[in-house]
Amino acid sequence: MNETSRSDLNAFFDPCNVAVFGSLREIPGTAYWVVRNMLHFGFRGDIYPINPDPSKYGEVLGLKSYADINEVGEAVDLAVVITPPPTIPEIVQKCATGGVKAAIVLSEGFTEAGEGGAELQRQLTEISRSTGIRIMGPNTFGVVNTANGLVTVPPYTDTERIERGGIAVCGQTGSIGPHQIPLEDWAYPVSKMCDIGNKCDVNEVDILNYLATDPETKVVAMHLEDVREGEGFIEAARRLTSVKPLVILKTGRSEAGARASASHTGSIVGTDRIYEIALRQAGAIRVNNWQELFEVPRTLLLQPLPAGNRFAVITLTGGQGVIAADSASASGLAVARFSPETTRNLSALSPRLGGNPVDLGPAMSDSRTMSSPNPFAAYGEALSLVLDDANVDCVTVVFACGRQTVPLFPMIVDMLSKSTVGHAKTVNVFLYGTNLSALQEMSRRLQAQGLPAYLDLDLAIRSLGYAAYYSRVKASLDESRLLCV
Amino acid sequence: MNETSRSDLNAFFDPCNVAVFGSLREIPGTAYWVVRNMLHFGFRGDIYPINPDPSKYGEVLGLKSYADINEVGEAVDLAVVITPPPTIPEIVQKCATGGVKAAIVLSEGFTEAGEGGAELQRQLTEISRSTGIRIMGPNTFGVVNTANGLVTVPPYTDTERIERGGIAVCGQTGSIGPHQIPLEDWAYPVSKMCDIGNKCDVNEVDILNYLATDPETKVVAMHLEDVREGEGFIEAARRLTSVKPLVILKTGRSEAGARASASHTGSIVGTDRIYEIALRQAGAIRVNNWQELFEVPRTLLLQPLPAGNRFAVITLTGGQGVIAADSASASGLAVARFSPETTRNLSALSPRLGGNPVDLGPAMSDSRTMSSPNPFAAYGEALSLVLDDANVDCVTVVFACGRQTVPLFPMIVDMLSKSTVGHAKTVNVFLYGTNLSALQEMSRRLQAQGLPAYLDLDLAIRSLGYAAYYSRVKASLDESRLLCV
Repeated sequence: MNETSRSDLNAFFDPCNVAVFGSLREIPGTAYWVVRNMLHFGFRGDIYPINPDPSKYGEVLGLKSYADINEVGEAVDLAVVITPPPTIPEIVQKCATGGVKAAIVLSEGFTEAGEGGAELQRQLTEISRSTGIRIMGPNTFGVVNTANGLVTVPPYTDTERIERGGIAVCGQTGSIGPHQIPLEDWAYPVSKMCDIGNKCDVNEVDILNYLATDPETKVVAMHLEDVREGEGFIEAARRLTSVKPLVILKTGRSEAGARASASHTGSIVGTDRIYEIALRQAGAIRVNNWQELFEVPRTLLLQPLPAGNRFAVITLTGGQGVIAADSASASGLAVARFSPETTRNLSALSPRLGGNPVDLGPAMSDSRTMSSPNPFAAYGEALSLVLDDANVDCVTVVFACGRQTVPLFPMIVDMLSKSTVGHAKTVNVFLYGTNLSALQEMSRRLQAQGLPAYLDLDLAIRSLGYAAYYSRVKASLDESRLLCV
Repeated sequence: MNETSRSDLNAFFDPCNVAVFGSLREIPGTAYWVVRNMLHFGFRGDIYPINPDPSKYGEVLGLKSYADINEVGEAVDLAVVITPPPTIPEIVQKCATGGVKAAIVLSEGFTEAGEGGAELQRQLTEISRSTGIRIMGPNTFGVVNTANGLVTVPPYTDTERIERGGIAVCGQTGSIGPHQIPLEDWAYPVSKMCDIGNKCDVNEVDILNYLATDPETKVVAMHLEDVREGEGFIEAARRLTSVKPLVILKTGRSEAGARASASHTGSIVGTDRIYEIALRQAGAIRVNNWQELFEVPRTLLLQPLPAGNRFAVITLTGGQGVIAADSASASGLAVARFSPETTRNLSALSPRLGGNPVDLGPAMSDSRTMSSPNPFAAYGEALSLVLDDANVDCVTVVFACGRQTVPLFPMIVDMLSKSTVGHAKTVNVFLYGTNLSALQEMSRRLQAQGLPAYLDLDLAIRSLGYAAYYSRVKASLDESRLLCV
């Protein structure tokens, strides 16, 4: 089997049909709930619940259940297995023999649970090697594909709808799953999700190869604890980062963290310095924490890459301007010096404007502005002027809102979004105020118009810093490719 | 006037009555709204609106208004002034002559607005020096005192109620104000708030001296851009930190940030290295960002200080355990090694427990646990066992919740809170899940029972790291005091 076909994970994400093995009792954490979640999220293919005691269930959630995969009478693409670990090698072997292309083993109790589990996991690896069936897991929540409604998680997800979008989120811990994260409240734009779990077969290299060519995925966010094939990883990551950004949170940085990782995955974790070098060679954006893993991709998805690192901020208080300048410096950005023309035009807008940070506070509380038909117009004008400046590559706009501004949100979003038209520069928004629901509402509205919003100023600016870093990396990758031609 | 009386800021925070100077038009940003906010938050003293044209207003919001402070006919403690800058020196002078003890100048347009403004500000400083009236500001939102309902901010606050509690929040930017922060959604426990603005008179040293002896304040959170009197600051901060924690965000760290600060406050900002040393000498906890400024004090307020830096975590996935160990290492905490007894007792709870991180995941999904009358009981038991261990000083408990667990919140909070009884150790909680409202609801409930909750694991652990740092600092301050006796 050559590498291309081994990395073809299509059966995991886009199967025509799925057989689900396990208990059909109505409790979360069972095959019943896998089926229920697939129906809830509108999976478009056929679903075959498989349980050796069909007399008891016969029909589940309106679907016929089967005692054995052989009874299905159709070629099955994907098996999802959540049965006691000792039963699993036989089930997967039978699937392979029956022509099933891929299996997701959701159950826990393998390498992470001691020697008995490790032996079972070795059997799974061997089955994959000898038969060609691809196996994801064990000890995983499986996959999500928002394009076809495939959601294989066994718990109750507490989620009505996952928004279809361009970010692939993957990792090797269950806490990356749709049942753990407020995807719906964030309106997080997901293409695919997956948890490679204990990696008995499918690993990060396969995922990178698959996502590099997945047209739905524009940005990849990946959580990693260990990498098994160093060179293969760098190669696959470079291939991906030459076409789309790869944001990586590599945990187990500290000695204590590496020990904790070894104890729960049974894997050997290299020193952090090696990962640092590998991730740099791979052209990946290495982030520092969970929050950045989810938040940084939003700017990368919605905005163009900055041509350089020259940063401007439009604030509402001087204090925020200072914080913004500190954050920019810590993120590898330079506080842009405006051209004389921009300074002149900003000063014409309000006598105390002209420099960067652009502190709109005094202009906004100016009685002329307040009594003008649209006191927020200063925002749009200042943003346009700053984006017009050839010395500026990226901008964070600070906006304060509360319950009383909710009726104005459509107008404000429209104005901000119009101000960015025709500028291929990177813009995001920092929102603050007294009311969390209003902030979330505004954030969703901005995002729907292509403007990523953050509830933390530092995080907004760090996202621009990472974007500028990737822009440099990509330029050098492009250059080395040209040289190879 | 000796130093003690100069630092007596009682008239700012606990005046018997307040005169409010400025426009009585019904628009946010005026004296009318200062009065309205004071009434809204239930200020207990008398309020005298002052406007030279009383014929127009006579009565405002049910209060008699006056053309001049001399007409009030009562001794006035505090003046709040929001009039055009050129009118302000005369108003404050008249207040001083009339025996008013303190004035808050809310208006902008002083040092930060150029030479004309700087001259007006010098006049204010001179009036304070020559008459003894204390002046806060200009360019400030003033003060909040939750004990008596004094809230002097001029904008609409979008807030029904500010919770009375032990954290004093002060700084030198308007963005620290109650009209800018979701205090109500956070149920943030406030004693006092204040913005020293341009510091024509009252500065950070006065605030530290006042808060050191304020019985309502248990923890101080302070944002600073510059310090004018280095030695006085260190002395005052040491006095405060010998009795309560002082959390400081010093911005203008970077060169760009310092430049931005100089341009909006007109102050000269020293190099960051000097601040670093001064803050260490002062025994202050220096935090890195806005989020930490608000979040770290919650653990310091609600929990005892840890005796040492040995940290344990109760998680729900192995992946979180690794992240927790990384965060602990980065925060100066050591991942505790449990005693043989604890290991034995945890293993008795579930065969896969025993180490630190304590990963409750497998135990929680164990069918025996799930079918027990209270699947969450494992939490309480594990937490008690860990807190019993003499090798453990502080603990973060990870809890996942969603809409479906809301009915169980009272039971879970009760159980967690009972498990901490009798242990003088530092405990906080990291909450995660799919639904933001449920998370906020659980966070408020835990806080009401004295358990600080965080929606970010790293932040929860960093808060413990800062608490352990302050615990060491305090011990050495106590020791040096004993040596002096």
